[in-house]
Amino acid sequence: MIEVYSWATPNGHKVHIMLEECGLAYRTIPVDIGDGDQFKPDFLAISPNNKIPAIVDPDGPDGQPISLFESGAILLYLAGKTGKLLPDSTRGRYEVLQWLMFQMAGVGPMLGQAHHFRVYAPQKIDYAIERYTNEAKRLYSVMDKRLAKSRYLGGPDYSIADIAVFPWLRSWKNQGIDWNDHPHLKGWFDEIAKRPAVMRGVEVLADRRRSITDDKSREVLFGARQYERR
Amino acid sequence: MIEVYSWATPNGHKVHIMLEECGLAYRTIPVDIGDGDQFKPDFLAISPNNKIPAIVDPDGPDGQPISLFESGAILLYLAGKTGKLLPDSTRGRYEVLQWLMFQMAGVGPMLGQAHHFRVYAPQKIDYAIERYTNEAKRLYSVMDKRLAKSRYLGGPDYSIADIAVFPWLRSWKNQGIDWNDHPHLKGWFDEIAKRPAVMRGVEVLADRRRSITDDKSREVLFGARQYERR
Ligand SMILES: N[C@@H](CCC(=O)N[C@@H](CS)C(=O)NCC(=O)O)C(=O)O
Ligand SMILES: N[C@@H](CCC(=O)N[C@@H](CS)C(=O)NCC(=O)O)C(=O)O
Repeated sequence: MIEVYSWATPNGHKVHIMLEECGLAYRTIPVDIGDGDQFKPDFLAISPNNKIPAIVDPDGPDGQPISLFESGAILLYLAGKTGKLLPDSTRGRYEVLQWLMFQMAGVGPMLGQAHHFRVYAPQKIDYAIERYTNEAKRLYSVMDKRLAKSRYLGGPDYSIADIAVFPWLRSWKNQGIDWNDHPHLKGWFDEIAKRPAVMRGVEVLADRRRSITDDKSREVLFGARQYERR
Repeated sequence: MIEVYSWATPNGHKVHIMLEECGLAYRTIPVDIGDGDQFKPDFLAISPNNKIPAIVDPDGPDGQPISLFESGAILLYLAGKTGKLLPDSTRGRYEVLQWLMFQMAGVGPMLGQAHHFRVYAPQKIDYAIERYTNEAKRLYSVMDKRLAKSRYLGGPDYSIADIAVFPWLRSWKNQGIDWNDHPHLKGWFDEIAKRPAVMRGVEVLADRRRSITDDKSREVLFGARQYERR
């Protein structure tokens, strides 16, 4: 059974949703990133960047175990393993791949910065709040324009590109978004939110979720280097 | 011949280096991102996220043209096209893929924020400077530890994971890095810097490079949404 080292965050949910969509059996191992679990040596051996999600598949290539970190790599791996949620044609695959990369390099990191400065940072810094709120709006607009012309982000079919983006947009309030500005994206969002596998995926580990604004979590997550040193 | 819409920046250099390493013929089309070229409709049709690099390969899948944006997708495409710089084995490919994703989601976006707040932002904001300098050091440490155990980032062989990371580390000064803290990474960096294809790649469009601290560039790059609206 696939082991998923994870937590109830957007990057964790990507993998939970993918496993549900593919109907793969899995077991979650909670990594409490507010408590510093991501710096434990056993976890770092699998995920050297001290971040969830990571997986261990005992039935990897050549029937040997494989471990993987980075949600984008995990999504591609699971798509490859099952033959699901990635087009068969070479052209279709690269079309999905570029939107997956857009999520990994843009939507994830930049909406993450918006969350940080708008919600979690101990100081309110107008410049940074404006910078990342503008970037969030820009990213939503890029996707809205895409979805005005394309049924799904990666092309005509639902794919890992949609699965990668969706969990991040659940936190639209924290990103200063007005859905009225992005009608095509909103239609897509509402449709995906109703998929049974998605509804199951976003509930994974949700009971373990807690605020990350206590002092310890702040120190672990926003002063990670200092924490790691001790 | 492959057309490369690009500029002399780390993300542009990734693709220039890859094309040089693969010995592919290409033609660069400069997109002056300080002057707003990335918002022109012809470019947006290829790169809807208004960012370089993007490519058009007239000889794509099934012999038909293909256009691609996102440097990570372009690197994977060119590796697939040429059979170079990505391992043959499935296991080896996913190992490289996770480090490529680490670059796309971490090294690129976060070092980019370090550059912004340390060098380009019109205000000096201590909190943000510390946040992204710490993150830069953390990322360098993750790579240093990896290279203490692995010959290259993606495994035993030089790959697109190395090509993706290298151009970002050329700006180590702007990231507040002391190379003495990262000896394995420094050894790797110096070795790669000497590769002939890399030396050629980083010179592509370098003559067009100019400061992005003039008023127009600042407005285009740091107030992009406002600019786009006009
Ligand atoms: N690019 C990574 C990002 C993963 C990530 O940012 N994970 C966060 C939670 S959503 C985390 O584990 N943070 C803990 C830390 O950075 O210490 C991916 O997509 O897997
Ligand atoms: N994730 C993208 C990032 C590309 C990117 O950030 N490009 C910058 C130059 S290095 C750009 O074109 N900026 C112009 C803009 O954002 O308006 C990739 O790897 O291709």
